[in-house]
Parts: sequence; structure tokens; C-alpha cells
Amino acid sequence: MDKVYEDSLALHKQNHGKLEIKSKVPVASREDLSVVYTPGVGQVSIEIGKDKRLAKIYTIKHNSVAVVSDGSAILGLGNLGPEAAIPVMEGKAILFKEFANIDAFPICLDTQDVEEIIRTVKNIAPVFGGINLEDISAPRCFEIEKRLKAELDIPVMHDDQHGTAVVVLAGLINALKLKGLAKEQARVIMNGAGAAGTAVTELLLEYGFGNVIVCDSAGAIYSGRTGLNEEKIKLAEKTNKNKVQGDLANVLAGSDVFVGVSKGNILTKEMVQSMAAKPIIFALANPIPEIMPEIAVAAGAFVVATGRSDFPNQINNVLAFPGIFRGALDNNVRQITDSMLIAAAEALAAHVTDISPEKILPNVFDKGVAATVASVIID
Amino acid sequence: MDKVYEDSLALHKQNHGKLEIKSKVPVASREDLSVVYTPGVGQVSIEIGKDKRLAKIYTIKHNSVAVVSDGSAILGLGNLGPEAAIPVMEGKAILFKEFANIDAFPICLDTQDVEEIIRTVKNIAPVFGGINLEDISAPRCFEIEKRLKAELDIPVMHDDQHGTAVVVLAGLINALKLKGLAKEQARVIMNGAGAAGTAVTELLLEYGFGNVIVCDSAGAIYSGRTGLNEEKIKLAEKTNKNKVQGDLANVLAGSDVFVGVSKGNILTKEMVQSMAAKPIIFALANPIPEIMPEIAVAAGAFVVATGRSDFPNQINNVLAFPGIFRGALDNNVRQITDSMLIAAAEALAAHVTDISPEKILPNVFDKGVAATVASVIID
Repeated sequence: MDKVYEDSLALHKQNHGKLEIKSKVPVASREDLSVVYTPGVGQVSIEIGKDKRLAKIYTIKHNSVAVVSDGSAILGLGNLGPEAAIPVMEGKAILFKEFANIDAFPICLDTQDVEEIIRTVKNIAPVFGGINLEDISAPRCFEIEKRLKAELDIPVMHDDQHGTAVVVLAGLINALKLKGLAKEQARVIMNGAGAAGTAVTELLLEYGFGNVIVCDSAGAIYSGRTGLNEEKIKLAEKTNKNKVQGDLANVLAGSDVFVGVSKGNILTKEMVQSMAAKPIIFALANPIPEIMPEIAVAAGAFVVATGRSDFPNQINNVLAFPGIFRGALDNNVRQITDSMLIAAAEALAAHVTDISPEKILPNVFDKGVAATVASVIID
Repeated sequence: MDKVYEDSLALHKQNHGKLEIKSKVPVASREDLSVVYTPGVGQVSIEIGKDKRLAKIYTIKHNSVAVVSDGSAILGLGNLGPEAAIPVMEGKAILFKEFANIDAFPICLDTQDVEEIIRTVKNIAPVFGGINLEDISAPRCFEIEKRLKAELDIPVMHDDQHGTAVVVLAGLINALKLKGLAKEQARVIMNGAGAAGTAVTELLLEYGFGNVIVCDSAGAIYSGRTGLNEEKIKLAEKTNKNKVQGDLANVLAGSDVFVGVSKGNILTKEMVQSMAAKPIIFALANPIPEIMPEIAVAAGAFVVATGRSDFPNQINNVLAFPGIFRGALDNNVRQITDSMLIAAAEALAAHVTDISPEKILPNVFDKGVAATVASVIID
């Protein structure tokens, strides 16, 4: 077993998880107790009982986010169930705290039924200021997010979709600037049509990209292809205007940008060489990218990004979700809109003042990023 | 407004609630991130995916309790809704941390439907090692607790019922020892037949009390009284063997013990004087007890206990619930049984080595109490 896996098992076993819940106020005397608990707290309940919006002033709802998963699509590992999702959601929660001082708590659901998930999240919503959906498989994630956004009065975001989309768009903004190509002209091949692929595609279109073709394992998605599910039919209507057909290798030839949210080692040196001059490669499959950066560069890639921390240009959602929720909480944003996501991507791109092919995005540990993103999440 | 209420509002407003969620592990470098989050955490998910019981080793489930309320019976304030329950449940959560190092999180439900509450709690159970039900009105609380105990594989306890029952029993054990009266002989009048009154009565009976009469606002409950709900019919079958009728003043005459979980100022000096010699008065209504201690003592009461911290003998659930859940988590207890509750009460009573009429229970801030109680919560 790799050392990082051994180390992770040891750390989780030794600490019994990664989160703890602490008091922000002292509880050392009877006087403390009478103020933080009974009888004093009764008055706080009475006030909130009169106007439930005061929960955002007087309680943890001011700063709390539920990290909700049903364990159906854990990382790239598949449907391992809710218990197996806990360590990932705890990890997400500590990133929320570390990068945006948000108090996030993992909610791992013992159901994978869409209606049941929606009902459960609505039932537990009162204590939360926001809902971060995570690792829920497509296409169920689309309906769950859409409905919760419509039916709750707090911000809801499926991070695998929109967090990814924001960081990819930010990276592409800077990569295209370096290449000197307008978004309207760039031919983009999006490989993968699940949660992330769909959301990235939609945000690129919303931003004004003029030529996007989405591929799934059967090749290019085009209007009229048989066997498409509802979501892919919608994608087909919005992309690939010339109804290009063929497998990834066919459609990639002559393209400017490859964005992979698919699986490892499916992009070859020859495929990169078939692309237009100065190809941009975002190989985001984890832990093994669609092509290893050194191979892509050797094949002529101009900018290469991956999901990994051990190569330049890491596309990591932690650049987006802490700031997005920080802004939503601080600015009392009820709905996170596409225009906010685009503003977040632009802010993220502009945060890098010294862009180069090896630096299209901020460093993951740049503590200024969350505030930059938060400042544009505003109605 | 009383100062304690003003202080409490100010503290809650200034801190925006009382809880925060922190990381127990460092997240300062790429190496940290690769161990606490991806890719390392994937291996933890894989292991738990193979055997979900490992969540108790590798995750917060090892030490987490949900504090669940629907806001239907908040303190003595009534049905103020789930948002108004948040500050109380946060308070409970910090007591869990302070007294038993348990990581508790408030779950305030946007439903008061029994089936919906049961379903929701079951759906969110994977991340929790135990469920503490709180401030849910009777009789709904009985069904909810019974069903969740049967249908979940983690310990479930409605603290308003059983936490109260444990502390009352502990206090009575010492009070009767001081009075020199056997539990089989003591005539106990239980005033209040809601969640707490029902649970206290049942635990006293289980422990071997021989003569308990429960009163509600219509007077003594007896088998055959018209208009009793299902729970009160059950109580009538188990108590008041002689089918004594009459109001509280009638049945109290000649009795040894009064336990009130009812409302303020309903017990008079004359009623105390009508009791048997050395009467024991537990006046637990909050914040105004059924009788003020100085009046009870002046009327001849031998032992007086209240729910308040500003008089001797405080009956406070914090003496019970932290230790009960600490023991349940540490000893892998799946069901908290009546015999565990009795053992907890006996341990709590025995924890006071210098009992006197002014000291029948440990001090609320005695940090040894939780460990004492925890040690007897074992299968």
C-alpha cells in the first residue's frame, strides 16, 4: 500500500476522525451556565420564536454549512455507502474551517432515494446557513440540487458540479489569455458527461464559450444520438452545433482545449499532437490523470493542469467552495447563481498577478483566495 | 428584563451561537492535505466501504451524538418551532463537550410529524454514535423514542424523560436513606404526567417503589378514570393500586414524597404540613418551582430539591446525560436499558459520600460525576 494511504489510515484511527465540536463560550461556573443554558437561553428561544430569522443572529446558523452526501459517488471510488462517505465529508468540513472559518458538519444519508434525500435535507435545514452537496451520483444530483435550491431559503450548491466548474473556468480564462485566443473561438473538448462535466460545460457556455463538444464513453454527444439520457439530451442541444460525431481521438484533432473529468491514461501523446497549436490540457481525473503532465508537455502541450498537488496548476475545488459559501453567508445570499459563479471564476483568475503556463491558478494554500472569491458572491 | 436574560441575548448575539467545529488534525501543507483529504482519505473510505462498523474507529462516529429536537416543547416555553430550539440544543451540545468530551451537534427538525421525525433521524444516523432526543412534546416523544430504539443500531435516549428520571431517583435514594424509609413503604405523589413525570414514575416502579400515585391537572390518575390517553391508561394500571381519587391536596395528605414536574407555585405551606413526618419535596418546575424552598422548609419539609442552581439539591440532567452517553459510546452499548438507568442513579447517589438534607446529590460541576455514571453504562 502507498505510504499516503497507510498514513491516512493511521491518522484516522489514532484520532477517531478529524472533527471536534467545541464551545466558543466559557462553561466554568453556575453563572456561565445560567447565561449559556437555562434559564438565560430561554429568552433567546422566545425571541427566535417570535421571528425565526433571528436564528441567523443568535445561533450557529450564522456560520454553519451541512456537507451532505449519500455515499453514492465517493471521490472516484463509486457507491460505497454513507458510512464510507464520513471521512471524506469530515475532510471537507475541516477545509471549510481552515480556508473560510465556516463551521461545517458532515451529514451522511442512509438513503439514496431522490425524494427521501430532498425531504431529509429540508427537515434538517433549520440549523444550517447553507447546504453543500457532495459525492452524489449523476443524474440524481441534478434533480436533488435543483429541488433543494427551489424549496429551501438558504444557499445550496453541489460542489462536485459548481466548485469544479468555477476552478476550471478560472484556469481556462488565464490559459486562453496566455495562448491569445478568445473564448468565442476556442474549440473545447469536454471529456466526461457526469456531474462535473455537465456543470463545467454549462458554465463555459454561460460565460460565452462558442464551441464546446462533450464526449462520453461512446464518443461525441450530438443532438439525435440514440440512447442519451435526459441530461445528455439537454447537453446535446446546447453544444456541438455542427453535430460532429466520432470518438475522442476523432473530435480532438484540431481542437484547442481538452478538459477531462473522466479516467486515467486515456489521452495519448498522438492525440495531443493532433490538436491545434499550443494545446491546453486539463487532465483532471484523480488520482491518475488522463495523461501524465510530462507526456503532455513532451507532446507539445502549452498549458497542463491536473487535480494533483504534485504538479503545477492544480485544479482543486478548495480554491472555490470556501469562498463561495463564505460570501453567501456573509452577504445573506439565498441563491448561488451562475453569474456569481462566473464572477468567482473571474476573481480567481485575476487573483494570479503573475500568470504563466505553469501558474494559471492561485496556490491552494493562498489564504487570500477565499476572501477574494467571497467578495463577489453577492446579490 | 432580568439581567440573566439580557446577558444571554448579548452573549448569543456577540458570538453568533455557542458552537464551533474544529479540526483535530493539522491542515497546513500539501502533505497534510494528502493525508487528511485526497488522495489518502480514499483508502479510509474503501476500508469502511468493506465493513461499515469501521466508521466507529476511523470517523467522528466514535464520539458523536446528535441532539435532536422538533422545537415542540422547548424548556417550559412550549412549541416555539425548530429555529427557536437551536440555542437550547447548542447549549446541550456544549454541556456534552464540557462534561463528557462528547462531540454533539444540534439537529432541529422542520417537522413535527412522528413518522417524518423517525424517518429523518434514521436517515442521518450514519454519522452519529448516539441520539439524544430533546424537548419533544408528550405523547409524541414516547412513540418516537420507542421506534428509534428499535430501529437504530446506536443508543437513543430522550433526555427529558430518562435523564430526569435518573437524577430524581438518585436524589430519592439519598433522601429516603436520610429519612430512614424503605422505597417499598414510601408513598410518593408524582405531580405531572408528561414526558418527565411518566419516565420518573416508570423508573421508580422499576426500582421497586411500592406506592406511587401520579396526578395531572385533573387530580389523581386511577384505573378507570375517564378521558385518559393511552400513556396515562398505562400509568394508571401500574400505579395507585387503591384507586385513590381526588385533587393534589387530597392525595398529598399523609404522603412521604412529593415530586413535581408541573408548574410554579402550586404547592402550599398547608399541603406540605398535611404530609407525613419529614416530608421530601422535589419541586422541579423551572424557573419557578412548585413551592419556594424557604416556604417548604418553614412548613416542615425535611429535604427540598429544585431544578435551580441558587438553592441546595439541584436536580439537573447534566448530572446524568453526559455520563450515560459517555458510557454508551465507550462500552459500545446499543440500547440504554432501565437497569443501566437504575445503575446510573445508584452510582450518582453513592457518589455523594457526605449526604445530608442539603446535599443529596453531587455538585453539578463535580467533574468526576460523568466518569462515575459512565462506568455503569455497560451491557
